[in-house]
Amino acid sequence: MQLAIQANDVRAAADRIRPLARHTPVLRSADFDAESRTRVFFKCENLQVGGAFKIRGAANLILSLPEADLARGVVAYSSGNHAQATAIAASHVGAQATIVMPEDAPRSKTEATRAHGARIVAYDRFRDSREQIASQIQKETGATLVPPFDHPMIMAGQGTAALELLAETGPLDALVTPVGGGGLLSGCATIGKDLDPALRVFGVEPEDANDTFLSLQAGERVAVNPDTIADGLRSPMPGALTFPILRQMVERIVLVTDGQIRATVKFLLLRLKILVEPSGAAAAAAVLFRMLPPEIGSVGVILSGGNIDFEDLARY
Amino acid sequence: MQLAIQANDVRAAADRIRPLARHTPVLRSADFDAESRTRVFFKCENLQVGGAFKIRGAANLILSLPEADLARGVVAYSSGNHAQATAIAASHVGAQATIVMPEDAPRSKTEATRAHGARIVAYDRFRDSREQIASQIQKETGATLVPPFDHPMIMAGQGTAALELLAETGPLDALVTPVGGGGLLSGCATIGKDLDPALRVFGVEPEDANDTFLSLQAGERVAVNPDTIADGLRSPMPGALTFPILRQMVERIVLVTDGQIRATVKFLLLRLKILVEPSGAAAAAAVLFRMLPPEIGSVGVILSGGNIDFEDLARY
Repeated sequence: MQLAIQANDVRAAADRIRPLARHTPVLRSADFDAESRTRVFFKCENLQVGGAFKIRGAANLILSLPEADLARGVVAYSSGNHAQATAIAASHVGAQATIVMPEDAPRSKTEATRAHGARIVAYDRFRDSREQIASQIQKETGATLVPPFDHPMIMAGQGTAALELLAETGPLDALVTPVGGGGLLSGCATIGKDLDPALRVFGVEPEDANDTFLSLQAGERVAVNPDTIADGLRSPMPGALTFPILRQMVERIVLVTDGQIRATVKFLLLRLKILVEPSGAAAAAAVLFRMLPPEIGSVGVILSGGNIDFEDLARY
Repeated sequence: MQLAIQANDVRAAADRIRPLARHTPVLRSADFDAESRTRVFFKCENLQVGGAFKIRGAANLILSLPEADLARGVVAYSSGNHAQATAIAASHVGAQATIVMPEDAPRSKTEATRAHGARIVAYDRFRDSREQIASQIQKETGATLVPPFDHPMIMAGQGTAALELLAETGPLDALVTPVGGGGLLSGCATIGKDLDPALRVFGVEPEDANDTFLSLQAGERVAVNPDTIADGLRSPMPGALTFPILRQMVERIVLVTDGQIRATVKFLLLRLKILVEPSGAAAAAAVLFRMLPPEIGSVGVILSGGNIDFEDLARY
């Protein structure tokens, strides 16, 4: 079967998104290396524009749209980082973004999205279907949908995080990313395996949002009802386009607990001096708690985002 | 009068400390730029080895010592970042470090220093003189003193932060650093003015630790009794070697309140996703609260450190 993206799609994305996405730094930590017993290279997407890797995919899709499409705007549904990323990328090219957000979304996220000129359409999480609302908006306005993960341009865009990381570090034994719908992991695996077929690729999910773990076990996409503090990893099922790539390229999904994620957020804050949200710290948690094969001597870890409220943080 | 260091001392320091100090990233923030109404380039010394710029000076001094001196060890007095930096640099060259620390120093700092193989000598802040204790240790062991700021090798080492920053950004209108004893500011001013004589250099002190502000006003070194949350800026008086450089090169000392520092720590954490300690955020506070001349269109800010306890942070 033909996979949805190839490594050259990721390379093309890297060129396309350069005006908009930041080349984020790669950090090291002697403390983290000692505790995890491996050499770790952190790709700091929490320091990315919009506070998460999501701008990579959204920019890649939106910057590839023809003028005529941009004039009709874009639409996305998300309560989190993808909403803000879509708003930022749309505003960069002067396109109107409409974001379908739950009416009980944190005000900080709604405001951040609105600040970039997006129109917010609120919906009731318990009664309405956000996909249907988005589809209705598409019909009425002719806007282009910017899906959160299951689109070749989104997947290729997210892969640029691994491309930048590996270009900077050179060959590593392993690459680890968190997994929600699989956009980040599929893009990173595609470019990582192309650069070095011996690279071992792992995804990390919270124990109670283990849809990709179960899907890989079953050999087909399985849905779960996620329950985790890692709000960015609560997608119920891997994507139709991401899943075949994960099946082919990912060695294993590692499961971590919310407690391990919390401890890792704290470690990254106090030792590395960076703020990483729970979803963003999941991959690091798997490494910190030594859940990768012990022979892995060097590992790239994507810290995927840093958007967390101060009140939540203070509670840790 | 001959100044204690020249720009080439900073350049030599950059070569010397390369094996030990990290080339820290320079971060930007659209939010901070909008709020401060200028373009800001943050030199992230909170992401430095040991969590602060202090490794630059300590490494520069210690790596320049002859073998025979190293064999007799080094001694430093500090309750904070300079202690850890001295311990790290000494351990790198296999020299014994003795650190004179107050017996009520935060346990996290004592342990971090001990973890790098340093010997801790505790003293009573209200009864003992740490300088006398250090001097006694020097006499007994022949150890070399690594002073916190008032030494040409320390000052030149700290200046490498500005050298790296300006090499990366190109010419800026202004450079701003926090001021304790003036080691960082004197080193940064020396290299900054050499690279571009038009560069405007500012120091920032807490209102209640304004010894350098008063000293520049008086034209001579004045002591105060500091009272501020910015524990790294509590030195009572500028140094004999740092002060002449500050007099010649610094346009003005900007004073900030502890409240402004706290707000800036929070802004840097939630918007830039980085943890900066109060001392480290002082320079950024002056920019965020628009206390520089309004015609300054681009400014380099040294975020000097990130060592803060989680409990202190949660209290903000």
